[in-house]
Amino acid sequence: SRSIDLAVIPGDGIGQEVVTQGLKVLNAVLPQDVKLETKEYDLGARRWHRTGETLPDAELEALKGHDAILLGAIGDPSVPSGVLERGLLLKLRFAFDHFINLRPSKLFPNTATPLAGRPEIDFVVVREGTEGPYTGNGGSLRTGTEHEIATEVSVNTAHGVERVVRDAFARAAARPRKKLTLVHKNNVLVYAGHLWKNTFDKVAAEFPEVTTDYLHVDAATIFFVTQPERFDVIVTDNLFGDILTDLAAAVTGGIGLAASGNINPTGAFPSMFEPVHGTAPDIAGQGKADPTATILSVALLLRHLGYEAEAARIEEAVSADLAERDGKQARTTDEIGDALAVRVAS
Amino acid sequence: SRSIDLAVIPGDGIGQEVVTQGLKVLNAVLPQDVKLETKEYDLGARRWHRTGETLPDAELEALKGHDAILLGAIGDPSVPSGVLERGLLLKLRFAFDHFINLRPSKLFPNTATPLAGRPEIDFVVVREGTEGPYTGNGGSLRTGTEHEIATEVSVNTAHGVERVVRDAFARAAARPRKKLTLVHKNNVLVYAGHLWKNTFDKVAAEFPEVTTDYLHVDAATIFFVTQPERFDVIVTDNLFGDILTDLAAAVTGGIGLAASGNINPTGAFPSMFEPVHGTAPDIAGQGKADPTATILSVALLLRHLGYEAEAARIEEAVSADLAERDGKQARTTDEIGDALAVRVAS
Ligand SMILES: CC(C)[C@H](C(=O)O)[C@@H](O)C(=O)O
Ligand SMILES: CC(C)[C@H](C(=O)O)[C@@H](O)C(=O)O
Repeated sequence: SRSIDLAVIPGDGIGQEVVTQGLKVLNAVLPQDVKLETKEYDLGARRWHRTGETLPDAELEALKGHDAILLGAIGDPSVPSGVLERGLLLKLRFAFDHFINLRPSKLFPNTATPLAGRPEIDFVVVREGTEGPYTGNGGSLRTGTEHEIATEVSVNTAHGVERVVRDAFARAAARPRKKLTLVHKNNVLVYAGHLWKNTFDKVAAEFPEVTTDYLHVDAATIFFVTQPERFDVIVTDNLFGDILTDLAAAVTGGIGLAASGNINPTGAFPSMFEPVHGTAPDIAGQGKADPTATILSVALLLRHLGYEAEAARIEEAVSADLAERDGKQARTTDEIGDALAVRVAS
Repeated sequence: SRSIDLAVIPGDGIGQEVVTQGLKVLNAVLPQDVKLETKEYDLGARRWHRTGETLPDAELEALKGHDAILLGAIGDPSVPSGVLERGLLLKLRFAFDHFINLRPSKLFPNTATPLAGRPEIDFVVVREGTEGPYTGNGGSLRTGTEHEIATEVSVNTAHGVERVVRDAFARAAARPRKKLTLVHKNNVLVYAGHLWKNTFDKVAAEFPEVTTDYLHVDAATIFFVTQPERFDVIVTDNLFGDILTDLAAAVTGGIGLAASGNINPTGAFPSMFEPVHGTAPDIAGQGKADPTATILSVALLLRHLGYEAEAARIEEAVSADLAERDGKQARTTDEIGDALAVRVAS
């Protein structure tokens, strides 16, 4: 009989609320014969305030044993910027070698977009997750003096770039439009840019059916708002991907709907699924958070574990739910979770 | 009697056409007693193809002698990416220590925006121009092999950050809303981020009348499309500024209207003014290019040289011209230049 052994990191702010709904829908969608086990990990701002710990070795070790991780949101204004990001979230992405940061963007029916004319939007960003300026490879000298110099080093390896580019080509090849756009800034960041572009061109030869395109990151932001329908799959580095996926979430109805997967396709370590949004402390605990992004992240999790039919059922349920949403009456976090649980179960 | 000694670098593609209109309007707006001298420099893709040169020392030296530089656009698909950017455009910005890259964004009346509901947009991005990941401080090892590693180093100094932050505070203090937003990514780029944030907080103490705000760059892109009216002055690093100003141009009616100044406020070297757009080789030579961005760059040039009334006259002319534009009938490059020259002269 089949089973899923899931680690759950609810985190801070609205994290707990949205994760509860994610698990509700997960339970509802799974076939009877699949045994779901979950274990909660108390990590994030509260833990840090209590013990000073971000991610102790023992917990990192324990997390390795699970099939996957569901994460709500991490962070709080009371914690100095960078402590939990570097000490917990990015530590997990790096320790578990999550080199594919998968972020689909789709403009669902009946959802608001700030763009006039409602263009068709349905693309996925394959963001590199373990290199670039995210490696923590910087430093500062004469800190706090008028002679301070602070650096940040973007690290890019042939190994790291090729594996994400290859994954993106495979994803593009599997989609109807079969189009892949590389986004970088190779007219300025010439060393990293050449590595990315050369790798992209090399791998492209193995996927003759995929149409390719290159855009500088600044130009890409223009097309995100003027012509988002031109994108199918986008592959890009860690920082550009961070920026572009927030913009993508904004044009597809907001960060409340944006799902993501931090994926290690080799299976050597558990992959981690999380909404793109943050902890939203201003609305935490009030039942106002939209759990849809977390529920869509559960769909990515299921797809990653081989439950394609169940993943698709969640996505269809979200699409149908949004289409029928009356748009006027706001629903609570719980009500949205309930509605989607009912839909996926039937 | 007063005089302006202007260097003109028309460059490639539509560069020549738009610069011609910029000079036409400059001539029309200047008072009779101001003597305008211009000298053209043949730099860009054609020059590089002919001689292999991007910016010879003698020309760099000669450029130093001018009061300011007007640049059209540089680049062509026939030139390898990075050659002219690093060898000419960025070389000028760095050699002349253009540490203020000034990019106003305004949604003029009657211009198209991809945003629904036409929010009010009137902000200015003060982009650092001489540091960050633009310093060319990278390299690659084992290039072209499966063991390649390519790096890019973002360099940030207290000197460089403080001068641009101070300039941005002064600009914010001089505007009615007096609001300044720092954009960075200090939860990930912690070394550079701390230097920027600490400097920002330190200088803020000298400008108690300015309201301050901080946004991560990813979140900033969200507000650019959902709530652009929240911005007044933005200060940010070289790369984030590059990305944000293209997005800003897109939401305010397109890159055809976006002006910029590469400014050295000390006067030690000439400042350089250029439209944000590129060479648009697909429409070059056809009279289709919109010269408005260049003409607005001429306004920034005049303001920098102390001709505030003339700068304002150009901006008012552009605003009035756009308001009266019928929106249906496209005008040629020349016609737009003529119309604006007539307006500023009267
Ligand atoms: C919280 C932060 C470290 C993170 C990132 O920059 O990757 C977030 O913005 C994201 O996109 O998941
Ligand atoms: C052409 C390129 C080097 C330049 C930059 O990145 O600064 C351009 O995008 C700009 O914004 O002026």
